[in-house]
Amino acid sequence: MTTVSDHQNTSDSAPAQATPNAELTHEEIFGAHEGGKLAIAPTAALTSPRDLSIAYTPGVAKVSRAINADQTLASRYTWTSGLVAVVSDGTAVLGLGDIGPRASLPVMEGKAALFKNFAGLDSIPLVLDTTDNDEIVETLVRLRPSFGAVNLEDVAAPRCFDLERRLVEALDCPVMHDDQHGTAVVTLAALRNACRLSGRDFGSLRVVISGAGAAGVACAEILEAAGVGEVVVADSRGVIHPGRDNLTPIKAELAERTNPRHVTGGLPEALRGADVLIGVSAGTIPEELVKTMADDAVVFALSNPDPEIHPEVAARHASVVATGRSDFPNQINNVLAFPGIFKGALHAGSRMISDRMKVAAAEAIAAVASEELAADHIVPSPLDPRVAPEVADAVAEAARQDGVATA
Amino acid sequence: MTTVSDHQNTSDSAPAQATPNAELTHEEIFGAHEGGKLAIAPTAALTSPRDLSIAYTPGVAKVSRAINADQTLASRYTWTSGLVAVVSDGTAVLGLGDIGPRASLPVMEGKAALFKNFAGLDSIPLVLDTTDNDEIVETLVRLRPSFGAVNLEDVAAPRCFDLERRLVEALDCPVMHDDQHGTAVVTLAALRNACRLSGRDFGSLRVVISGAGAAGVACAEILEAAGVGEVVVADSRGVIHPGRDNLTPIKAELAERTNPRHVTGGLPEALRGADVLIGVSAGTIPEELVKTMADDAVVFALSNPDPEIHPEVAARHASVVATGRSDFPNQINNVLAFPGIFKGALHAGSRMISDRMKVAAAEAIAAVASEELAADHIVPSPLDPRVAPEVADAVAEAARQDGVATA
Repeated sequence: MTTVSDHQNTSDSAPAQATPNAELTHEEIFGAHEGGKLAIAPTAALTSPRDLSIAYTPGVAKVSRAINADQTLASRYTWTSGLVAVVSDGTAVLGLGDIGPRASLPVMEGKAALFKNFAGLDSIPLVLDTTDNDEIVETLVRLRPSFGAVNLEDVAAPRCFDLERRLVEALDCPVMHDDQHGTAVVTLAALRNACRLSGRDFGSLRVVISGAGAAGVACAEILEAAGVGEVVVADSRGVIHPGRDNLTPIKAELAERTNPRHVTGGLPEALRGADVLIGVSAGTIPEELVKTMADDAVVFALSNPDPEIHPEVAARHASVVATGRSDFPNQINNVLAFPGIFKGALHAGSRMISDRMKVAAAEAIAAVASEELAADHIVPSPLDPRVAPEVADAVAEAARQDGVATA
Repeated sequence: MTTVSDHQNTSDSAPAQATPNAELTHEEIFGAHEGGKLAIAPTAALTSPRDLSIAYTPGVAKVSRAINADQTLASRYTWTSGLVAVVSDGTAVLGLGDIGPRASLPVMEGKAALFKNFAGLDSIPLVLDTTDNDEIVETLVRLRPSFGAVNLEDVAAPRCFDLERRLVEALDCPVMHDDQHGTAVVTLAALRNACRLSGRDFGSLRVVISGAGAAGVACAEILEAAGVGEVVVADSRGVIHPGRDNLTPIKAELAERTNPRHVTGGLPEALRGADVLIGVSAGTIPEELVKTMADDAVVFALSNPDPEIHPEVAARHASVVATGRSDFPNQINNVLAFPGIFKGALHAGSRMISDRMKVAAAEAIAAVASEELAADHIVPSPLDPRVAPEVADAVAEAARQDGVATA
């Protein structure tokens, strides 16, 4: 296996590290991916006959016998208690869409690397050559003894909603579709701090979400769980309300639960006088619409790589602006959430990831940023090492409050 | 996660490492298993925004797009090209029998540690909560994009034969049930050197295998593939021959292919005048029977932890004796075979593990030991670091000769 440093040593180009802000080169990216981005590291030496006798036969037989007698010991004497399966079928990968399981694997390896780096959690990418929810659930049920939690990743909407719901029911361990809830948690954290800055109260807040895919639906859920007064969701066909035809099951649910004033029409109708716009749509939103929002509006334009509205344009009409990009202030990045959420859930031996745990994660993220709160600093840096431990503690405590913790 | 050193630091007992030959203590074994024996290690740093941009978004999108356009690039830019799935349903674990997937996991983690230690291969334990061959095959077919090879482990006979055969058909990658072929390869290596010592020729050799489980069946197969003149297999009901009733499919096959003189009866009939006894039965073989074998007989009593006959007793009548135990000379240990076999097969991009590749592995193991050939040194030490690379080279070359290599 060629390592990154091997590659760079044999490269003709000058070391790219010397110019940290230069554009990424093809060689640099592909060189870093040669042979993949993960390796297995045994936790103990295996160099003497005695080492072998402890880690393998005959010593290991004592451990296996103990687990056979008491299955709960598996979490203590195997790596599963800290192991996340990063599961994808490759149907909604980054902005690339349905590229299949093999092509999704570098993303899943990257995710596993982030889990290790930020939360010290081990994880294994499991990419599936099926897009049938029955088969995916069945596969993970059979594999259940092999891991401690499931991070579902890059599964297309609306199938992802049904899949996550069924996995949560079928597996007695934390399951979370990160494209839904990771984004929602960080969005809630950012919104909490944006409201602190503008002195707004969640209860009287009017929020418009543009986009009803994985992230949009989850954002609506968590904002309601956190007590936001009014949430209106719009998709490409306009505002979601109970009178609309041909709603998917998940949108029909949204129609029942959101939009209390029964707004109809499109974004123009929804945004007029609204306090907050959350864009998770991959579309564009014209400046004229943002102009109609309330004073000191909050705009999160989260589409990647192209925000729904350029943050500098949005800032003409909004007092707080965030995007999904690292080259603008206030990056809404899932890495602020998922490492700590899974760490906290696994640490508490939680059977699930509840709404309370997600909201607690958001509050913890917001609290880290609030120490230096400013309009251009409503969320911590994705690399801030304080975040994951704070999130983990808050999530574990919430699991205990919810009665879903076992440790 | 508590590490081994953490545990030992907090232990009241004196450090066990100071007495390398002392009996393993409960604390030492369980301490080494706290939190499991494996960890994930990202291969590159993730400490700067630039690191994140390379290993995750936006850089990783370029790699995913490249694999989407050319699926064969997955083996180059993901860890799968060097990744073995260590798969078990926990139905025949060590000498413990059917203890289930959770209790088998420490064994699979140990196996993964050995893969890394001896061959530098990454591997992930996948333990399955099903013993239905249809479901196991289906599960691994769905997971196929996630790994590069399958080491099937500790699946009960006779189901293991059907399962391995079907996995080999269903998956376009190396698949090997180690309890069958690992044992068979090392046995063949040992037999090759035993015959060198006693000047015997394989073509005229009479071999009796006691035991028709996973190892016994595979030993019969590989010895025939290697040109051994006569192989007779006996199970608990006696010698396997075409006239016997109620043979399982695999034993019916053995009856057709082995036992050319159509020996009937039991071990007494089979062993009279035989050159070689291979015990893989978990039973016992009395000294009187070994006494009836040919002069300078060869006895491999491989049952663990109790050999079919004590090696010192066997040595009264045999010129070469081997066991499966580390505390006697000539330990027949699978770790001599599987790391190098999978390394060679993966390195060659082989679609399978052929008979020729297994025989080549055996010859390579025998060659390493033959440098210091003696009656008490017919196989290398399990810790000999020369073995896996030699085996890997021989296996890769055999794959190319067989036309199953793609690299």
